[in-house]
Amino acid sequence: MVAGEHFLPGRTAWADVGWKALASNLSDIAAMGGSPDLALVTLMLPPDFCVEDALALYRGLHECATEYGVTLGGGDVVRAPVFAITVALSGHAYCPADGGPVVLRRDTARPGDLVAVTGAPGESAGGLRLLNDGRSAATDAETCLIAAHERPLPRVALGQAAVRAGLRCGIDISDGLVQDLGHVARASRVSIRLDETRIPLSEALREVWPEDALRLALMGGEDYELAVIGPPAAMETWMGAATGVVTVIGEVIASGTLAVQVLDADGNELALGRGGWDHFAGP
Amino acid sequence: MVAGEHFLPGRTAWADVGWKALASNLSDIAAMGGSPDLALVTLMLPPDFCVEDALALYRGLHECATEYGVTLGGGDVVRAPVFAITVALSGHAYCPADGGPVVLRRDTARPGDLVAVTGAPGESAGGLRLLNDGRSAATDAETCLIAAHERPLPRVALGQAAVRAGLRCGIDISDGLVQDLGHVARASRVSIRLDETRIPLSEALREVWPEDALRLALMGGEDYELAVIGPPAAMETWMGAATGVVTVIGEVIASGTLAVQVLDADGNELALGRGGWDHFAGP
Repeated sequence: MVAGEHFLPGRTAWADVGWKALASNLSDIAAMGGSPDLALVTLMLPPDFCVEDALALYRGLHECATEYGVTLGGGDVVRAPVFAITVALSGHAYCPADGGPVVLRRDTARPGDLVAVTGAPGESAGGLRLLNDGRSAATDAETCLIAAHERPLPRVALGQAAVRAGLRCGIDISDGLVQDLGHVARASRVSIRLDETRIPLSEALREVWPEDALRLALMGGEDYELAVIGPPAAMETWMGAATGVVTVIGEVIASGTLAVQVLDADGNELALGRGGWDHFAGP
Repeated sequence: MVAGEHFLPGRTAWADVGWKALASNLSDIAAMGGSPDLALVTLMLPPDFCVEDALALYRGLHECATEYGVTLGGGDVVRAPVFAITVALSGHAYCPADGGPVVLRRDTARPGDLVAVTGAPGESAGGLRLLNDGRSAATDAETCLIAAHERPLPRVALGQAAVRAGLRCGIDISDGLVQDLGHVARASRVSIRLDETRIPLSEALREVWPEDALRLALMGGEDYELAVIGPPAAMETWMGAATGVVTVIGEVIASGTLAVQVLDADGNELALGRGGWDHFAGP
């Protein structure tokens, strides 16, 4: 996370920067159904960076590490013209008693599989839009969206439950639901069809951004929720272990365009245009 | 490694930046007598960074990884206003058949131990001074110093041999011989006395910087050589396995100042002043 690129200093608390730097890595491990172990932290600090801010940053890192059982094992600190933090997180894959390690992958979606998403995507992007508008949280709903943006809760336990339930395909949707499912479609050489009416929209998102809730849920990034894809039986096993948090939103269809389409209630395809997060296109 | 802080783009080849980013991490593992395994690379790239330069950078990373048997396992690329590369390298410690892992540490020096250094320290600082003077390599000696600065060869095999020989105290001297031995002195609560006449000065260093060779060897950084400290018997075993590359340069004495002193041929202490590398003091 680079100051001015991935967050705005002065608008984001340093403790939240620390939390999110680790949380975004945890989500990559969650997306494979793995278990996190050890984090190494590299800090690039400008010469005028305050010790108090560094302490706040580490407080956030430590809170997240404690929450997810991660060891903060060291790292490096160097001088730089701009603040940046990078976390290298190691973990281990699930190993059933009768075989080698198994993980969720991007290239294992098959026609007939169901597509499910955890939580309610779009809240983080809704919170970011509030912050970009210079608004602080005035209502419970706004507080909820900003918290989703600043203190995301990666789905480590749900990812682990997914591989244990026999699921083998998944991704985190930190770059946006449609864009990340596009990675799955291309890697698996299938297409994915989502049902607009089944996309879970949180009350908070609908209250704060009533016009844009669907678009934020489909295209907004940084949710650190998971999309998991698999046969109906395994999906049912998983959802039984995670009541209320997982929603089936679509299905995998035989190849065609290797793309993601979203159909409305009448079966017409939504025009999504360009969206999702491209690391070099900028915000 | 941050552009403009740790190297000057335009004066350093990108392949050398890649090599050194990994080599400096390998030296930290060498300094504990460990074996490197997996490297994760985070790149911060300005929007105008050339693809050709990124390829050259990775060529250098790959050359170093191949040389030392390291797997380049992934990482992250983000946009930033300044180029930076950080490597997180994991490895494993030596485990003798009859016990748990053993490593070289900083806090295990004891009075009566010998102090040895690998290679010929100061060459890297001598090469850096040539580069800072805007000089390119005109002689074999200058080529040697610049190569020592740009393509350091961390002492992984010598570190491994040291723990196998029963040695338990060591450090890499990337911040300068005297400064890094100072870390050992404070951590072990001892003092260290070096003998000026025994400091190995390479022919190249004496040829290019005849007046400053000793000072560069004592205070210059980025050599990625090792200082190893231990009882005479274990030291002899190690040196027998590494003929010609290891030189005994001093000894550990009972606590006192917890500092490093260098005595000249007449037994008088050299005045060293401030030196070595401080990450926040700048070059």
